[in-house]
Amino acid sequence: MDQRISLITLGVSDVTRSAAFYEALGWARVDTTDGVVAFDLIGQTLGLYPRAELARDMGLKESDLGAGGSTLGYNVRDKDDVAQILAKAKAAGARILKEAEDVFWGGHHGYFSDPDGHIWEVAHNPFSPLREDGAFRWNGYG
Amino acid sequence: MDQRISLITLGVSDVTRSAAFYEALGWARVDTTDGVVAFDLIGQTLGLYPRAELARDMGLKESDLGAGGSTLGYNVRDKDDVAQILAKAKAAGARILKEAEDVFWGGHHGYFSDPDGHIWEVAHNPFSPLREDGAFRWNGYG
Repeated sequence: MDQRISLITLGVSDVTRSAAFYEALGWARVDTTDGVVAFDLIGQTLGLYPRAELARDMGLKESDLGAGGSTLGYNVRDKDDVAQILAKAKAAGARILKEAEDVFWGGHHGYFSDPDGHIWEVAHNPFSPLREDGAFRWNGYG
Repeated sequence: MDQRISLITLGVSDVTRSAAFYEALGWARVDTTDGVVAFDLIGQTLGLYPRAELARDMGLKESDLGAGGSTLGYNVRDKDDVAQILAKAKAAGARILKEAEDVFWGGHHGYFSDPDGHIWEVAHNPFSPLREDGAFRWNGYG
């Protein structure tokens, strides 16, 4: 099994509302069919799909979704970008879980949750600068 | 905000057990510190981190985690690979949510959940073949 994730699918209660949220952050969707809203990322696609249909597709009840906690990380090139991204997310309707602050490992970060509670970490990691194309690789913390 | 996700972090109850699960699927971890287990992917890193510490880091209670349903997608080059990956995941301790089957949109897929209930879709999409480097881009279904 190669080390890749091809799709990240977020189960959402209102696809139109969620799509507007991510578009307000500056993302452009690609044309799709079947009620999915998709955004192409560096090495995979982020999809938004109705929670009820996502559960049906997996053979689960909607109440079964979300057993495990998870976050989506967005790393930035400059420390000041963290607060700016959080402000932009808040303006787009996000709930701020943690305002931008220094972290014990030497970085700077904050958290927001999208309209359905999907949690994003916005982080500046001075020990793992982003590559030219925006890709992130783990170099260890400090 | 550029279209990227730098880190996918899974909150897990036992990092050692979860790391063994992903290693049994054939993935190699990178050296990290601070109790994170990380796997480098094409354009980002997948991290495993204790649920309780993840919640604390976000300023949430552990019971707050997982409000939104989500899946991680692993696409394969050949239809027969779906069943093989599911069998390998089952042998590594996964719960099979849906065995490999044809899907209405013309593909072939199945689902498994990892030791903490994080849900993976394994799919073959004949309309969106993987690029040489394994990257996936959405071309629409059929």
